[in-house]
Amino acid sequence: MAENPVRFGIIGCAGIAGKLARAISLAPNATLTAIGSRSMEKAQTFAAKHKLPESVKIYGSYDQVLDDPDVDALYIPLPTTLHLHWALLAANNKKHLLLEKPTALDVAELDQIIEACQSNGVQFMDGTMWLHNPRTARLKLLLSDSTTIGPINFVHSTSTGLQTDEFFESNIRVKPDLDALGALGDMGWYCIAASLWAKDYQLPATVTALPDFTRNAAGVILSCSASLQWDQPNQTHATIHCSFLSHTTMDLAICGSNGSVHLKDFIIPYKETSASFEFTSGAKFVDLHIGWNVTPEEVRVDCELPQEVVMVQELARLVQGIRDCGSSPSSKWPEISRKTQLVLDAVNKSIELGCKPVCL
Amino acid sequence: MAENPVRFGIIGCAGIAGKLARAISLAPNATLTAIGSRSMEKAQTFAAKHKLPESVKIYGSYDQVLDDPDVDALYIPLPTTLHLHWALLAANNKKHLLLEKPTALDVAELDQIIEACQSNGVQFMDGTMWLHNPRTARLKLLLSDSTTIGPINFVHSTSTGLQTDEFFESNIRVKPDLDALGALGDMGWYCIAASLWAKDYQLPATVTALPDFTRNAAGVILSCSASLQWDQPNQTHATIHCSFLSHTTMDLAICGSNGSVHLKDFIIPYKETSASFEFTSGAKFVDLHIGWNVTPEEVRVDCELPQEVVMVQELARLVQGIRDCGSSPSSKWPEISRKTQLVLDAVNKSIELGCKPVCL
Repeated sequence: MAENPVRFGIIGCAGIAGKLARAISLAPNATLTAIGSRSMEKAQTFAAKHKLPESVKIYGSYDQVLDDPDVDALYIPLPTTLHLHWALLAANNKKHLLLEKPTALDVAELDQIIEACQSNGVQFMDGTMWLHNPRTARLKLLLSDSTTIGPINFVHSTSTGLQTDEFFESNIRVKPDLDALGALGDMGWYCIAASLWAKDYQLPATVTALPDFTRNAAGVILSCSASLQWDQPNQTHATIHCSFLSHTTMDLAICGSNGSVHLKDFIIPYKETSASFEFTSGAKFVDLHIGWNVTPEEVRVDCELPQEVVMVQELARLVQGIRDCGSSPSSKWPEISRKTQLVLDAVNKSIELGCKPVCL
Repeated sequence: MAENPVRFGIIGCAGIAGKLARAISLAPNATLTAIGSRSMEKAQTFAAKHKLPESVKIYGSYDQVLDDPDVDALYIPLPTTLHLHWALLAANNKKHLLLEKPTALDVAELDQIIEACQSNGVQFMDGTMWLHNPRTARLKLLLSDSTTIGPINFVHSTSTGLQTDEFFESNIRVKPDLDALGALGDMGWYCIAASLWAKDYQLPATVTALPDFTRNAAGVILSCSASLQWDQPNQTHATIHCSFLSHTTMDLAICGSNGSVHLKDFIIPYKETSASFEFTSGAKFVDLHIGWNVTPEEVRVDCELPQEVVMVQELARLVQGIRDCGSSPSSKWPEISRKTQLVLDAVNKSIELGCKPVCL
């Protein structure tokens, strides 16, 4: 453990909190200090299940974690509807913020959260883990090289996973009062983030939902697709598809003028120790078009730390800068979150408008 | 060579004709009898380049091939605008027909061609080669098994290839009076065919072009995407993307409730001796969602004959049945062509309507 690690608290004991508790314990510059649930019993069960060390304080409320002066940064995996309330409280209590995606019900809420973080001088980051995988940086390097892939013309991504009957009956992610954005918020967030990432965070000019959207009886989106259209400098087009109704897919395909890349596990890599992508560049057909001159090349990237650990490490690095060296919070991560939420809002609005294009 | 092979003629000496000349020579039940070009010189150059045997008759006109009583079947790789004229002549001359895709400028033209074939008792087939690859049959077997992939929810396919400046200036495929359907006809045909194939040729209820279409100054489509939506029994959604402006891609992804399949070379396999696809079934995340319980499985299928040879062989088999045994022409292939053309027309119409949905 490095000196002066960043001390994390977690409020809410959802499944994903276990993954983050482990990530915090593995990050060299972070330590888990406190967890809180709405009941002491739930918090203790969580601590036992995840074998948290005895040094971790167990609270039977969220407020106690927020009031704990030993907590520097807070991870919030609560249902989206609760984000605004608890994120504002956290920022106003000078806690740095790791907020699970989707960050808010809409960008107006997120703006309140980001403004509260800014005015309190705390760092904001959302919980999009794959952006921190070393593979992602390696892929960006390839895309930045102007010859191998070239200007990006087309991006396609999917984030799907078949859910159980129990999920559709009782999970928070299909409840309008908890996670009203449904599959779009939970799964589509990743596809939107990937499209923006591929375009170096240039916003699309137009966002259009496709006619395949499905909602449950309460109006929560279970499955949808959208088209994202950029105008300049080149007219990139992205399609996204997210669904609770299909088998697990995490496809990302990016096609430029000179080459293309393919990932089938872009959100959660198959294994956490290494991750790969495939690319093809300068493909032509051999004489008589009876085959290709090249086959896809695999690039495998070792992951010394799992991607969620790199995420925690990056947030902790920024927090250490602010806490120990007087640095200002970085605007990079809140800007990424805000753009992702903005496009997500546009998809949602286009669905509400019966698939009419929404201009950004 | 089998006894009584089907004797093929080719009219037009485009690049693709060389591939088919070879395919006809490799098909065990077919033989190349005659080729015709608009000039004897072109025809002779073609014959020399492709080392055609001396037995092949070389004609300086298309009509002479059509009039040759030794020709049973005709392969027509001419520009789309010319299909109607020459296909009708061929059918009326009792020649069986292998017609390059797109089959016609619209389904009304294609219907005339198919009707002429029916009334003359000749077989019709379009030149979609990948449908005949043994891999395609193997993949259909997997999709037909109700558990591995399950009901199909989502299909995504691309057919793209970057063209040269010379192509954009002078190629027939970007000339409104020759191949007015541009990339949609030349490349999009494959994606539409793949979507229909995946759905066992059930037509989608609605076809909607996406806002990314690009045309040249003459109005010919250089790049476009579309959404195909099925209503019943399950609400399958397909997206297609075709383009002359992007690097070579031939992606086909099919996702069901229980599994998914991926091909990156579905139109022309990387190698002609074998072809593969990947599938994943029953994928779940391991504890804490730090990886998958499975990775994609590759299925490799040996190809005793290249796919275009299997195509010629299949057509020749049908022709032998008609010619030698009094069988009726099969309606399978013209029906597949007609449905593909129908959906292609709908994409084209949706583009003309500014991306409004077109009902089928």
